[in-house]
Amino acid sequence: MSEVYAARRERLRDHCTATGSGAALVSRPANVRYLAGAAPSGAAVLLGGKEDVLLCPEAPGAQGETGRPDESLRLHVLAAPGADAAVAAAELLVGEGADGARSLAVEEDHLTVARHRALSQVAPRLGLADLGGAVERLRLVKDEEEISCLRIAAEIADQALSELLESILVGRTERHLALELERRLVDHGAEGAAFPTSVGTGPHSGMPAHRPTDRRVEEGDFLSVCLGASYRGYRCEVGRTFVIGTSPAPWQIELYEVVFAAQRAGRETLAPGAACRDVDRVTRGVLDSAGYTEGLAPRTGHGVGLEIDEDPRLGPAAMGKLDACVPVTVEPGVHLPGRGGVRIDDTLVVRPEADGGPELLTITTKELLAL
Amino acid sequence: MSEVYAARRERLRDHCTATGSGAALVSRPANVRYLAGAAPSGAAVLLGGKEDVLLCPEAPGAQGETGRPDESLRLHVLAAPGADAAVAAAELLVGEGADGARSLAVEEDHLTVARHRALSQVAPRLGLADLGGAVERLRLVKDEEEISCLRIAAEIADQALSELLESILVGRTERHLALELERRLVDHGAEGAAFPTSVGTGPHSGMPAHRPTDRRVEEGDFLSVCLGASYRGYRCEVGRTFVIGTSPAPWQIELYEVVFAAQRAGRETLAPGAACRDVDRVTRGVLDSAGYTEGLAPRTGHGVGLEIDEDPRLGPAAMGKLDACVPVTVEPGVHLPGRGGVRIDDTLVVRPEADGGPELLTITTKELLAL
Repeated sequence: MSEVYAARRERLRDHCTATGSGAALVSRPANVRYLAGAAPSGAAVLLGGKEDVLLCPEAPGAQGETGRPDESLRLHVLAAPGADAAVAAAELLVGEGADGARSLAVEEDHLTVARHRALSQVAPRLGLADLGGAVERLRLVKDEEEISCLRIAAEIADQALSELLESILVGRTERHLALELERRLVDHGAEGAAFPTSVGTGPHSGMPAHRPTDRRVEEGDFLSVCLGASYRGYRCEVGRTFVIGTSPAPWQIELYEVVFAAQRAGRETLAPGAACRDVDRVTRGVLDSAGYTEGLAPRTGHGVGLEIDEDPRLGPAAMGKLDACVPVTVEPGVHLPGRGGVRIDDTLVVRPEADGGPELLTITTKELLAL
Repeated sequence: MSEVYAARRERLRDHCTATGSGAALVSRPANVRYLAGAAPSGAAVLLGGKEDVLLCPEAPGAQGETGRPDESLRLHVLAAPGADAAVAAAELLVGEGADGARSLAVEEDHLTVARHRALSQVAPRLGLADLGGAVERLRLVKDEEEISCLRIAAEIADQALSELLESILVGRTERHLALELERRLVDHGAEGAAFPTSVGTGPHSGMPAHRPTDRRVEEGDFLSVCLGASYRGYRCEVGRTFVIGTSPAPWQIELYEVVFAAQRAGRETLAPGAACRDVDRVTRGVLDSAGYTEGLAPRTGHGVGLEIDEDPRLGPAAMGKLDACVPVTVEPGVHLPGRGGVRIDDTLVVRPEADGGPELLTITTKELLAL
């Protein structure tokens, strides 16, 4: 694996050279993990000094959740308690005599004003530039190793969900169902939930990112569940809506069919070269045509990877096009205030037509199940 | 409750007036919640404009976990998706004609460089100052309402722990025990865990913030558990170490007695006017005298409240003195590499001698239980 991390750092160094920065400091945890194989708490990666360095406030533990640091990186554990890895990185550069000789690109959308100032105080002659979203852009297209982590994460989530569906649901609270799902994720090998598990029943069903309450599942309810597993840092997402009881009401069947059609249309739009905003437009268009225009979420999908919500964003104002090997969610939903609603959410990997088109990672059925 | 939040904002306004800032912008979630009664995702509080405003990227949900906003604050929901509450606050001030007329104090240790720049771009003539830790300082001393939330949080954690002790532990993994504890916290009314529950067995016991692994509890192990509940946003912490099996080894009894003595000495030092570093020195001194000088955590306790780790910090370099009604943890521990160790952790409220001395919130026994 070590070559993978070294190659990623090499690409970032190329970017820095091209933009005129001699060195780069990466502090955003998902970016640190991408470049170093691990993201110990408060760590930062410094590239472009005498050697690449992972700076950590404390010695990284042997625990799996934050990964094991790439051994081709020099590990620098900060001696003083409470020391800041970003400031220590600037001190290293100064110690190497790089002060004044070059500029250091930092993540201005992650570093706080206070840390940025502390950094310029220890290295007043070092020009500070903005690295922008350079690492996030490298992270967009995943390699097959990353995709296989996402595939395992999706299998775990599917499995947790399928086991829940075999149990009795009526009378249990949203909160309990969510905890049960999270326990099953870990049982099946996840490091943990990829994001807080959402369970919504009755009037809460179909709400995006609904936080579970003490409402109990009742006969006739819609039940929406959205969960994901984190596996080696990679996070997937699956969302389904079920109906409780033997006979769904006509409005439930109709609403389900509309959201299902929207979700299918979105999935079918996924292809290398498709504009991100077009995927959203097509998905949203099905909901619109059926008269569901109000209270829709601002986006109908997003990228996943080391973060659960990363680029590309699939919304009306999204820029850019999809590439092969970019994993995204397609997750339209409709919520009718007071009645509830439907959300259907899959994680897929964009693949060219010749490779069979989009690869569905979350394979739980999307038939309307009456439980 | 509304007067409570209004009074807190009044104190912050007084602080701003005294330091020459006409307005303050608070973005750190725990500080937003302290001033507004709720911390919807991405929200910020603006004080010192025409009226006090809570700016939220989305309409706050009715869900309990982030609280219900104080109704005496004007609620301003941002129209554009993805808009930044801090930038919108600066726009509000400019719209009121305040641009250039005064300075705005912001939280430089929370705002990123990118947000800070966006803010100065919409209000170029507004002087930006640093609010520093002004709200954190207001949060140090708790009112009785806050302490009662902490008391309930501690009761919940004690209850979850006592139920776990009644079950069979041998053969279960750290990960499962941690999940079981977190489920019980929610069962007993917590919004969730105050921090990731730590369970360490055998060689992992006694490690601070150990992340649970798949190691199973074995006969003869030390078992360290550290957990906390979050109740109305207030977070407590309790940590205990047990021995598995009927007869602890002599080294286990000896180590337990030393850590217990250190923890008791620390608790007894808590009093209004005691220097924070003295509490640490006394606690640490007991470990030192017994010959446990290596690998100790940099601090032996810390404040708790809306965050699980807040001021005051109890460490060798800590400044300042304790006040009445400040809740803190006292949590010394020793970890012997390869063998395991002991941690004992309580949440207490500093109270004057006349009121009975420090109030112990976490009442689980600290006898060495053999389970």
